[in-house]
Amino acid sequence: MGVLHTAHGPIETPAFMTVGTAGTVKGMTADAVRSTGGQCVLGNTYHLMLRPGPDRIAALGGLHQFMDWPGPILTDSGGFQIMSLAALRKIDREGVTFQSHTDGSRHRLTPAICMDLQHKFDSTITMVLDECTAFPVTYEAAEASMDMSMRWAALSKQSFRPRPGYALFGIVQGGVHTDLRLRSVAALKDIGFDGYAVGGLAVGEGQAAMLQTLDATVPHLPTEAPRYLMGVGTPDDILRAVERGIDMFDCVIPTRAGRTARAYTTAGIFNLRNARFADDPTPLDPGCTCPGCTKHSRAYLHHLFRTGEMLGPMLLTWHNLTYYQYLMKNIRSAIAACEFTAHAGRLRLAWAKQDHSQ
Amino acid sequence: MGVLHTAHGPIETPAFMTVGTAGTVKGMTADAVRSTGGQCVLGNTYHLMLRPGPDRIAALGGLHQFMDWPGPILTDSGGFQIMSLAALRKIDREGVTFQSHTDGSRHRLTPAICMDLQHKFDSTITMVLDECTAFPVTYEAAEASMDMSMRWAALSKQSFRPRPGYALFGIVQGGVHTDLRLRSVAALKDIGFDGYAVGGLAVGEGQAAMLQTLDATVPHLPTEAPRYLMGVGTPDDILRAVERGIDMFDCVIPTRAGRTARAYTTAGIFNLRNARFADDPTPLDPGCTCPGCTKHSRAYLHHLFRTGEMLGPMLLTWHNLTYYQYLMKNIRSAIAACEFTAHAGRLRLAWAKQDHSQ
Repeated sequence: MGVLHTAHGPIETPAFMTVGTAGTVKGMTADAVRSTGGQCVLGNTYHLMLRPGPDRIAALGGLHQFMDWPGPILTDSGGFQIMSLAALRKIDREGVTFQSHTDGSRHRLTPAICMDLQHKFDSTITMVLDECTAFPVTYEAAEASMDMSMRWAALSKQSFRPRPGYALFGIVQGGVHTDLRLRSVAALKDIGFDGYAVGGLAVGEGQAAMLQTLDATVPHLPTEAPRYLMGVGTPDDILRAVERGIDMFDCVIPTRAGRTARAYTTAGIFNLRNARFADDPTPLDPGCTCPGCTKHSRAYLHHLFRTGEMLGPMLLTWHNLTYYQYLMKNIRSAIAACEFTAHAGRLRLAWAKQDHSQ
Repeated sequence: MGVLHTAHGPIETPAFMTVGTAGTVKGMTADAVRSTGGQCVLGNTYHLMLRPGPDRIAALGGLHQFMDWPGPILTDSGGFQIMSLAALRKIDREGVTFQSHTDGSRHRLTPAICMDLQHKFDSTITMVLDECTAFPVTYEAAEASMDMSMRWAALSKQSFRPRPGYALFGIVQGGVHTDLRLRSVAALKDIGFDGYAVGGLAVGEGQAAMLQTLDATVPHLPTEAPRYLMGVGTPDDILRAVERGIDMFDCVIPTRAGRTARAYTTAGIFNLRNARFADDPTPLDPGCTCPGCTKHSRAYLHHLFRTGEMLGPMLLTWHNLTYYQYLMKNIRSAIAACEFTAHAGRLRLAWAKQDHSQ
């Protein structure tokens, strides 16, 4: 348990960062995000560079002012989305050229451009440009990609303009190969960063391989810098990764699930479209402080999803984010009381309950 | 200017009622609706009887509790939506049989059933069952339909269970034919209602014919009872109808427009998708108290609509409803100061401004 003190306020760790891809957390006002307890929002450089564009965001006072989020903002490098979304991408030693998935326009991303973009966004935490390899990938491809990402990490560091309370994070790559991960860690430590992310996981390798990779990687990261596991994960993933020393997480699960009627609760995962909720007058999660739980019944939430009303995704996104922040708060309290491992065991028991609604 | 004191709180008139079709104002939490200043929400009996159904709503504590709206709720009779939405409708002297537009299930609506539905919803203001004729319609068809609606009005009154603070409104029909409207008014006055609605307008007859019909009808309505113009309208429609003695309105314009990027402001109507807003750092409507105006720029709202983000419709619905309530508050203040006509003239000037964004 710790606190990252940033130019835009504190981030208590272990922290779950709320995904706000294109300058908005889908279906949530900034006030609503604040009410969940989330302290840091994550923006996606790929989306923001295309729309509304870095110069526009800078002219409008930066991403904080643009989206009414004065708190900390972490932006990714764009690398991951270029691989998963962009068309006609072409990678060379210096960077990547790609076409927008929305209008076909051509764009170029290099470490220097990537730093400039995130500078224009006024990102509190900037991520180095990296390549996230797909899974599975051959050892040779993972090695070549990792080596390139390490070159890009060094170039990113050179272009980053340090300011007090702002941070630059490196990203460990190397797939599920321990020796590549260790070489990547060593390369990043040589360069020196404010924080270290573990990238290239949660891309299809499965939880066991992910945890194995963490076991091999995390002990070699500097102990004084925060460690961030990118794109992870389920509550269970988070508990297991915290046990292994991870401080920061981000994931679309709570927001995406909220839009598709999947509720994360202290009693497990529910699908609110299930007919068994049609007449259920009880709150979704009795102890929860979100408006969906304090003001409405499961029957009402069920009704909203069955009739396709916007308020369903809105209220359930709000709930799921509140649940995730509640989980993180419990983890921080357990760590403060030196009983995290026992606590994680108890929480896991709850997650192991059958999901009757699927 | 006046106040309707109901079992669920006051409705200051002239009032604009917020449309909450299926137990939710689309894209708005109940707290957000409250923050706009709206005091009364309108529910649609047709939608609510199909989903979630009257017995379910009653078992869950009524519509107020179901949707977290302890304030006044008016429900329509279902007649209008049966004509516009339902399949295979068949009208007879006693009522109407129809199939649901969502699942094809068969339903029956009579005056007695209609009263029972709204009783189960616990509606503060119940509307009689009526037939809303299309436009244009022959004189003979309008006459037969009006006569039937008046029979149904009498039967509705017989089945309605009066309670203190609850109200039953009759609905004047008769198309654009003055003599039919007057016969309808006389019939309703004979039966006796807590309020009188003017129905069958805003169905394509145009503003001039609508106002002409109001001119011929409203002076004959009881002065001690509220008058409600159903389904109207634009701000200009509302101003002109208030001049003619109307007290209550409802309309989907502010909510529907909010979902399609049309902004109602003190400077006229804007389409927020227009490229001229892409770099505009100013608030949508500088004096407005909604979060879209106090926390964001036009550029941000433009961005949300261009990227298809849910928050765009959410914030603009919130804004448009806030604008409509601001309009009604100004009208009430002007009436209180005995200067409504001059005030309406000034407001009309603003509305006459060109809409540059279309």
